[in-house]
Amino acid sequence: MSEPLRIGVAGLGVVGTGTLTVLERHHELIADRCGRPAMVTAVSARDRRKERGVDLSAVRWFDDPTAMASDPEIDVVVELIGGEAGVAKDVVETALAHGKHVVTANKAMLAHAGTELAGRAEESGAVLACEAAVCGGIPAIKTVREGLAGNAVEAIYGILNGSSNYILTTMRETGREFGEVLADTQKLGYAEADPSLDVDGIDAAHKLAILTALAFNTRVDYEGIHVEGIREVSALDINYAEELGYRIKLLGIARRADGGIEQRVHPCMVPKSAPIANVEGVNNAVVAEGDFVGNILTEGAGAGAGPTASAVVADIMDIARGTNLPTFAVPASNLHPLASRGMHEHQGGYYLRLMCLDRPGVLTEITAALRDEAISVESMVQRGRGPSGEPVPIVITTHETREAGMMRALKAIEQLDAVLEAPRLIRIENP
Amino acid sequence: MSEPLRIGVAGLGVVGTGTLTVLERHHELIADRCGRPAMVTAVSARDRRKERGVDLSAVRWFDDPTAMASDPEIDVVVELIGGEAGVAKDVVETALAHGKHVVTANKAMLAHAGTELAGRAEESGAVLACEAAVCGGIPAIKTVREGLAGNAVEAIYGILNGSSNYILTTMRETGREFGEVLADTQKLGYAEADPSLDVDGIDAAHKLAILTALAFNTRVDYEGIHVEGIREVSALDINYAEELGYRIKLLGIARRADGGIEQRVHPCMVPKSAPIANVEGVNNAVVAEGDFVGNILTEGAGAGAGPTASAVVADIMDIARGTNLPTFAVPASNLHPLASRGMHEHQGGYYLRLMCLDRPGVLTEITAALRDEAISVESMVQRGRGPSGEPVPIVITTHETREAGMMRALKAIEQLDAVLEAPRLIRIENP
Repeated sequence: MSEPLRIGVAGLGVVGTGTLTVLERHHELIADRCGRPAMVTAVSARDRRKERGVDLSAVRWFDDPTAMASDPEIDVVVELIGGEAGVAKDVVETALAHGKHVVTANKAMLAHAGTELAGRAEESGAVLACEAAVCGGIPAIKTVREGLAGNAVEAIYGILNGSSNYILTTMRETGREFGEVLADTQKLGYAEADPSLDVDGIDAAHKLAILTALAFNTRVDYEGIHVEGIREVSALDINYAEELGYRIKLLGIARRADGGIEQRVHPCMVPKSAPIANVEGVNNAVVAEGDFVGNILTEGAGAGAGPTASAVVADIMDIARGTNLPTFAVPASNLHPLASRGMHEHQGGYYLRLMCLDRPGVLTEITAALRDEAISVESMVQRGRGPSGEPVPIVITTHETREAGMMRALKAIEQLDAVLEAPRLIRIENP
Repeated sequence: MSEPLRIGVAGLGVVGTGTLTVLERHHELIADRCGRPAMVTAVSARDRRKERGVDLSAVRWFDDPTAMASDPEIDVVVELIGGEAGVAKDVVETALAHGKHVVTANKAMLAHAGTELAGRAEESGAVLACEAAVCGGIPAIKTVREGLAGNAVEAIYGILNGSSNYILTTMRETGREFGEVLADTQKLGYAEADPSLDVDGIDAAHKLAILTALAFNTRVDYEGIHVEGIREVSALDINYAEELGYRIKLLGIARRADGGIEQRVHPCMVPKSAPIANVEGVNNAVVAEGDFVGNILTEGAGAGAGPTASAVVADIMDIARGTNLPTFAVPASNLHPLASRGMHEHQGGYYLRLMCLDRPGVLTEITAALRDEAISVESMVQRGRGPSGEPVPIVITTHETREAGMMRALKAIEQLDAVLEAPRLIRIENP
């Protein structure tokens, strides 16, 4: 049996202590599978005295994680501090500068500086691995980078955020509105006190940026992603989706199209029969579309101590086994710049919900606005009639059309006297 | 860029020509991702003159695949001849004896001789890779071996045969009987003229044998698998399943239990809400249950030229990149003997359908037989009444109980005068 792999863990939150637990409980199994032991020999966190339920008596403690990152007795630094920049990035840069391998779950940092950090790793002959950064326990990175290696990837998309999927699932199951369900979700601990990362699509966009680079061998381009969250999704829209045969899901999507790669995160209507429509609750799922293999879906827990630690340990074991690949599948210097296709060029179907005065001529005005942009209506629903003066919903789905034209039509519709609220728009995806 | 990897392909059926197509069409992409080209330099098949739609002018032709397997100018032999023994095995043994890497899609051969062949590969320092042998394009092997490397696997199960899943899906959607749907499936080319491998569970068992070895780091034990196919599943049972909230799926299951590992392939009733219940048509899916990661499901095309070739090429690329692992995750000499738990010890719920005379006392006789084995009834349905003298179905589901007792009860029930046909039994799985 070869020399043990010496690991320093920076950050002892739930994922950090989870990682220590996995490495301790499966010490023997991991040594068997890697041909060498993987041992945590150092840790760093803010508060040394905090009770974490793991035995730290045999490991060295560092108050300063950056000092740990340059320690000559450590082979791999596991960065679980989090945050786009600051200490986390200092730790990673220091470790790589010292030729140490880095395993990280830090999607924000990689979304913003992934290409640069991958380049630094390769310059110093180190590994920068980040399976835990994308959808927790799901081996999404390994599946795209290795499982689909022989394919040109046409698209990669998925449910990349568990909190927002839990909220949408609960809204559908209970008929309740976003605000109420969000509050409950926070009580359950599935969403942070500041839920913005989750419900505004930012966390999903961080993950999408990483997946896009892997799938298309392009530089990480977080800035190029069109991002919308789920705050505007209402119980009414969820009901209409059901009725029309759809489920509403927050998807992150990267797709090769004429003129470049589209990257977008927004609520989507997906047909109920699509496998991704049946991914419910806190689960995440990633679908990679390869030109030879077709669609490969991987589903599982996208967050939590056990699943995320499982992914961290998988990366550590790849390092112990010596089977790592470049962070984004090919060397960073070979990553192509991403030719980004703007959202205005997007083509697809749309769901519109308008709240209108129930009076003659309204439908004519609305359909004329669509006709003026050559948008073809697939279905229209106007039903019932509220108490006098109350607005009634009119729901329209369209055939495939261009986003730019749809936005112009929407502007025209919004200005109609009979349209009383801002129109709601949800894009239809037929994956 | 390093030396090209030189590949010899033995067998030019759909998967063989598919592999040539992938390697040709993505020659550049593969070289970029591997840091070296992967080139087919030799092929062997039965009929040289057959039109296959691929250009063979630049490759060496071997009439004898065994001669190709010992050729000094070849680094990797891709075995796509098929068959448990015979030429396919000769080719693999010859290649390994000459220190050449082998990539194979041959599940029958590995189910019967996997441990031995993996041992031979390791002795000569060669790789024996078989991603394409399990569920075509789905990276099932990579997911278990690498993605879940840090977990003790509690269970692995899945829909491992696309033809039988297609038949069960079609039976449910159309209400038709097995025989009719099978005939149509054969016309569509989704089942062979001799459908036995597919519908009798043998093909699924081959794959399960490989997955079990990987998941539990045990020697391959095909003989220890309890195998039942889908020929006995009737439209009536599919209707009752629907009514009771289940779908009928042919699952291959390996689960760690007291006293050993259970390996079994048989039709199962799974709750409609379980992700695996929603894997329809020809798709395959594998679920791995890790102690830290929870359930990871991977779904995709389990057969066909493109998907299977995609998996073959993924293995070739691992070899080109130098990132291979032992066939069954740990060296063959470290694989434990599999302590097999017999089917009689299985514990679970059961669905029974009996065709009975509609006369007083029948239910008492049946329930007494169950009571005598301490089997607790969960639900019982007897409805309607046929024309006089026609048997009526009685459907019973049980709480968890032991297979041995259930089999004794079934024997007793079968001997009742009022029970007119052999009882149908389907095991209930709550994955």
